[in-house]
Amino acid sequence: MNRFKTISILLLLVVLFLKLEAQEHPNLVLTKKGVALIKEHLNQAPLFGKTLYLVKEEVDGAMTQGLAFPVPKDLAGGYTHETHKFNFFILQKAGALFQITGDERYARFVKDALLQYKALYSSIGVHPAERSYARGKLFWQCLNDANWLVYVSQAYDCIYDWLDKKEREDLNDKLFRPMADFLSIQNPQFFNRIHNHSTWGNAAVGMIGLVMGDEELINRALYGLPMDTMDHRKDNDGGEIQIKNQSKAGFLAQIEHAFSPDGYYTEGPYYQRYAMYPFLIFAMALSNADLDINIFKFREGVLIKAVDALLNQTDSAGKFFPLNDAQKGMSYLSRELVTALSCAYFYGNQDPALLSIVELQGKVPLDGSGMATALAIAKKETKAFNKKSMLLRDGPKGNLGGIAILRNKKNGEDGALVMKFSQHGMGHGHFDRLSFSLYHQGDEMIQDYGAARWVNIKQKDGGGYLKENKTWAKQTIAHNTLVVNGASQFNGDVQRADAVAPTPFFFGSDKEEYQVVSAKENNAYGGVELHRTMFLLQDAAFSTPLVIDLFRVRSQTEMNSLELPFYFQGQLLNTTFDLNTKSNLVPMGASFGYQHLYTEASAINKEGFQQLHVLHNNKFLTLSTLTEKNDVLGFSRIGANDPDFNLRRDPVFIISKNKQQQAMFFSAIEIHGAYSAVTELASQSESQLAGMKIWVDTEAYTIVQVKTVHGVTWTIAIANQSNVRKEAHEQQFDGQTLRWKGPYYVVKN
Amino acid sequence: MNRFKTISILLLLVVLFLKLEAQEHPNLVLTKKGVALIKEHLNQAPLFGKTLYLVKEEVDGAMTQGLAFPVPKDLAGGYTHETHKFNFFILQKAGALFQITGDERYARFVKDALLQYKALYSSIGVHPAERSYARGKLFWQCLNDANWLVYVSQAYDCIYDWLDKKEREDLNDKLFRPMADFLSIQNPQFFNRIHNHSTWGNAAVGMIGLVMGDEELINRALYGLPMDTMDHRKDNDGGEIQIKNQSKAGFLAQIEHAFSPDGYYTEGPYYQRYAMYPFLIFAMALSNADLDINIFKFREGVLIKAVDALLNQTDSAGKFFPLNDAQKGMSYLSRELVTALSCAYFYGNQDPALLSIVELQGKVPLDGSGMATALAIAKKETKAFNKKSMLLRDGPKGNLGGIAILRNKKNGEDGALVMKFSQHGMGHGHFDRLSFSLYHQGDEMIQDYGAARWVNIKQKDGGGYLKENKTWAKQTIAHNTLVVNGASQFNGDVQRADAVAPTPFFFGSDKEEYQVVSAKENNAYGGVELHRTMFLLQDAAFSTPLVIDLFRVRSQTEMNSLELPFYFQGQLLNTTFDLNTKSNLVPMGASFGYQHLYTEASAINKEGFQQLHVLHNNKFLTLSTLTEKNDVLGFSRIGANDPDFNLRRDPVFIISKNKQQQAMFFSAIEIHGAYSAVTELASQSESQLAGMKIWVDTEAYTIVQVKTVHGVTWTIAIANQSNVRKEAHEQQFDGQTLRWKGPYYVVKN
Repeated sequence: MNRFKTISILLLLVVLFLKLEAQEHPNLVLTKKGVALIKEHLNQAPLFGKTLYLVKEEVDGAMTQGLAFPVPKDLAGGYTHETHKFNFFILQKAGALFQITGDERYARFVKDALLQYKALYSSIGVHPAERSYARGKLFWQCLNDANWLVYVSQAYDCIYDWLDKKEREDLNDKLFRPMADFLSIQNPQFFNRIHNHSTWGNAAVGMIGLVMGDEELINRALYGLPMDTMDHRKDNDGGEIQIKNQSKAGFLAQIEHAFSPDGYYTEGPYYQRYAMYPFLIFAMALSNADLDINIFKFREGVLIKAVDALLNQTDSAGKFFPLNDAQKGMSYLSRELVTALSCAYFYGNQDPALLSIVELQGKVPLDGSGMATALAIAKKETKAFNKKSMLLRDGPKGNLGGIAILRNKKNGEDGALVMKFSQHGMGHGHFDRLSFSLYHQGDEMIQDYGAARWVNIKQKDGGGYLKENKTWAKQTIAHNTLVVNGASQFNGDVQRADAVAPTPFFFGSDKEEYQVVSAKENNAYGGVELHRTMFLLQDAAFSTPLVIDLFRVRSQTEMNSLELPFYFQGQLLNTTFDLNTKSNLVPMGASFGYQHLYTEASAINKEGFQQLHVLHNNKFLTLSTLTEKNDVLGFSRIGANDPDFNLRRDPVFIISKNKQQQAMFFSAIEIHGAYSAVTELASQSESQLAGMKIWVDTEAYTIVQVKTVHGVTWTIAIANQSNVRKEAHEQQFDGQTLRWKGPYYVVKN
Repeated sequence: MNRFKTISILLLLVVLFLKLEAQEHPNLVLTKKGVALIKEHLNQAPLFGKTLYLVKEEVDGAMTQGLAFPVPKDLAGGYTHETHKFNFFILQKAGALFQITGDERYARFVKDALLQYKALYSSIGVHPAERSYARGKLFWQCLNDANWLVYVSQAYDCIYDWLDKKEREDLNDKLFRPMADFLSIQNPQFFNRIHNHSTWGNAAVGMIGLVMGDEELINRALYGLPMDTMDHRKDNDGGEIQIKNQSKAGFLAQIEHAFSPDGYYTEGPYYQRYAMYPFLIFAMALSNADLDINIFKFREGVLIKAVDALLNQTDSAGKFFPLNDAQKGMSYLSRELVTALSCAYFYGNQDPALLSIVELQGKVPLDGSGMATALAIAKKETKAFNKKSMLLRDGPKGNLGGIAILRNKKNGEDGALVMKFSQHGMGHGHFDRLSFSLYHQGDEMIQDYGAARWVNIKQKDGGGYLKENKTWAKQTIAHNTLVVNGASQFNGDVQRADAVAPTPFFFGSDKEEYQVVSAKENNAYGGVELHRTMFLLQDAAFSTPLVIDLFRVRSQTEMNSLELPFYFQGQLLNTTFDLNTKSNLVPMGASFGYQHLYTEASAINKEGFQQLHVLHNNKFLTLSTLTEKNDVLGFSRIGANDPDFNLRRDPVFIISKNKQQQAMFFSAIEIHGAYSAVTELASQSESQLAGMKIWVDTEAYTIVQVKTVHGVTWTIAIANQSNVRKEAHEQQFDGQTLRWKGPYYVVKN
């Protein structure tokens, strides 16, 4: 640490000390001022009133029932785990109710529970389950203990001034300080990581520090433990404990490392949603504490940007794109986003578009930010949240790949094409570089598998990651990207994958007629260059923009096999090529996920323009592809070697090329029409695409065309080696010379 | 025909002749009186106004676009088929608009189209597609031509008086009379069946007869052609053209044969829905014509009863139970039911519960009945439609089996258990005697496969029945009922199956604590007696009633194999037994549907109480079963030998017993709890069942028990040979003597 930094931290600590001395409670998420605001406007903010009523119902019910404090024993999904988890949510709410209603029943309820926890915590050692790299005490992993402390410190803050000094000191000494030390000093491999686990740990320690006025804990939370206290083990998900060249730890380092300048979180939106709560709740507490850390302006307001990035990484039903390890169905209706939205509104720029999402959530947090949001809604300030096409860069400096979201511009937020070329995403990352997924009106039309896991479902291995998460869900063949020689990218090695990011090549979303994203990956397979470019073309022929997919491969040596999967969903209607269906099914391979796939049918190959038609959730999807001689078109299904039925039996279409040194996969996807089982009418059930052609595919240039049934021709040119914006290019094809500037050129005739 | 009957028909014809002479138009579905009623109340009935607005939008759009009249060529789903189908719907609506609005544009539009059809019809022969047993002219089968005539006769009626006499005579002679003759005299194998096809034919001929005042056609429609004009071919679905001992034909014979006294339609609700439109629309026309046929009182008002039966054969989302050949998703929101509901309301007893379904439909027919319904809704007369547990007897006399619906009484129309022991259901029947299906909150928890067909989806063989409908969907193994020796019931022979019905044994739905249905089938397998009894038990331990399933088999000789499938849906969570998973999949057999199943896993058998847990659409299902030594518990999946991907890859759990002369399958099903992917919380995820026991299973009696985890024991006794209500029984078990009266006894301790 340099001298200047040391001095500034010391100065900060002086300020901190003076402020902490003077403070009164609540001073964390709820504040004296916030409570006053809430009481003043309670009758003017129906959404706040509704939330308060529901929370009161819930807490009163729990108080009548009484809490249990079992000796910790179970994994997630089990009784002791779920009981302590239930408790911390209820205690946080009871604390807020005490402040808002002034009803001392709630304060007594919190106090009694804290005394129970004091006794329990003193009597137990580390949790008996041995699965975690950082075992907790109340729970099987420190992560959940940190969850507990983040919530319970809020409850404690709410009754802090109501307790007498002796009671406070007793709880501080016997419960909270020991817990804070356990989660940090005694578990540096948990506390000092750059990882969502540690964010919870940092927030937990910092928040209880703020409540207790314990500057050492606040300091520890913000700046971490000395780096030499960490060892270099892997965690139980196979992730590295220490990231490459890690020199800092603590909450501020988390913010620096976790988010890209665009607010993208390298583990993907499912984990970002989870991580946002400790980031924002501690940030709110820091902001309220007025410690001269302008936390919401830190790194150009990246925390608020991250909320915006998260909202944009959703389909039209608000479900997060299931990138990396992600349980499908999680959405912006989750409790973490309820906090995040009001926080971003109140501590950010009071963006009225956020209010539209809050209205969908139907509740607000019971604090000052929630009241501000509810009041704005009551005043009818709400505006629509318009999701935009965007490139979200990855990496702290924004130079480590990213993801691109191309949205349907014709029909609002109707559909989204997501292409992924971000970093590996650490322990929760998948080997899925240059993969894509396609969404339409809340449906996954080309799916990303997500994680093999049912969170908190006891029957599925206690709710933890299933072994098929590693053997299937993380593997390259489980994604809509190219597999070279039957192996996963980086041979499935997380460390190698974490070391290097893909390269964004170009991105364009400013035109009405088309949008584009292009990226390269030259490290995933030794000596092989992968280059994928995807377009959305707006054409009157297509009710939803046409997806164009150009996947280009160049290798130093001949490649044995190249396989490009498309995980369509629903029922295959028909194909333009004849299928050779297998009557006996055998696994496609022995490793890298192939052991989980059965080939159901493959095509007797014909050269040329081929199509398959699918019906999914009463929508039609047509996939067109230009095949060469010796290509194999196959249909496979997930589910082989799955002894516990942990995998969904979903279908996939795979285009294979063999024994090539270079190849171009040229495909197009239409989503069209509708079917109703009630009227039994099918509309627009047919493809509007009449043909496809590759004119040029050299080192320098690719030129392709697609034709619609109405005779419209789209010509697409790509400069494969230069993404310089103004560079001039010229290439002959079909007896004409095409001249353009910049890395790509699209023209409709 | 006996003399008395001949005389009464002749008298009817005299009355008919006199009335037809005097009539003015419209006199079919819309009437002078109905139009007056509509005009008078147009501002007081918002639902009618809304429908009128939408229909006007639709017809005006079609008029701007203009209609096409292509020379017939395509099958269902194809252009010429869909175009002429579109036309008849639009013309019927345009006719109604002319009457209601008085705007002559609509009359001219109808007239112009009729002239086009006159020219077309004169110029074409029979349809070129050769697939149907009764090829039409405008469409590939007479059925669709009849559809056309049923709708277009309504349009014609609306402009009849507006046309001059010469125009009318011209259309009568060159279009309508030839079409009516074509659909009857020239196609007796279509017109004279007892079948939904013929109902359309009868209605078509009768309705155009009523419009033209053509007593010969009306007579032909009501009483059919002479029976000796029919030949005995099979239709293209394999159904018999002439049913056993058929002595009558025509519309009245259809009503007599098609419906049971309870309003059950032997082909099942999907086809009943389809058939109801011609039944009701012609009945309305006959009723409006005031011909001294009190059609809605015919057979004790069976047409109105049939509407009620149809509404009761739906899940809580209004979807019809997919019995026999049925496309899933069809519901009481269909256009046929829009007509049926207003008809049943207006011509029936003005049951205010019907209005609640009309409100869900959101539209009414544009006639007097629709106005009456819309007015009643506007007057807030709507009451809830409460579906009840019921036994719907099958057969014209109600003595040919039936279906039972046991509904969850605790939570209203929350769930339904459907057991099927009806007649075969003719050409659209499945070999599924004693099968069941289970519904909960709009989800199929134990599914009936339905038909292998996508109606009107061109890519799937023109929307017709797929070959897998016969090789899979109709077969016994495709249903939740017992398969003996690997063959379908009646060896898959429709004629044998049609000849004999199963036997209802008992039914009880009057108790709060339990409901029961029991039926026997002694003909499906030679020398084998099948007896299934199912209960719904209400117990505080179960959030949804516990399903008890007792399937008892007795054979004269040893049976090689007995297989009882349960087509659960969703994801298998876990099993209490160890699974031996196959890595290579081979078809289970070569015929009777087994060729379409792969065995994915089977259990290393353990005697005793076994369970499997499933998650479907965020609900838990636990299936418990009592196994014996040598039983095999297996998981299979549909999809083998399916070259065109016509089958869904759905899972099934199969309990197998081998080499037995008698057997008892004793199982229980719980639906419980919920999971949210947003809160990631699972509630009530565990079974509440602790054990099951068979105490007695003799020729005379079966006594079994189930125990809940709370220590409650349910004891169930069945008198296997006597269903006499008051008969006294006595049986010892577990050191006690159980005494009861009647065929079953249930006690909770």
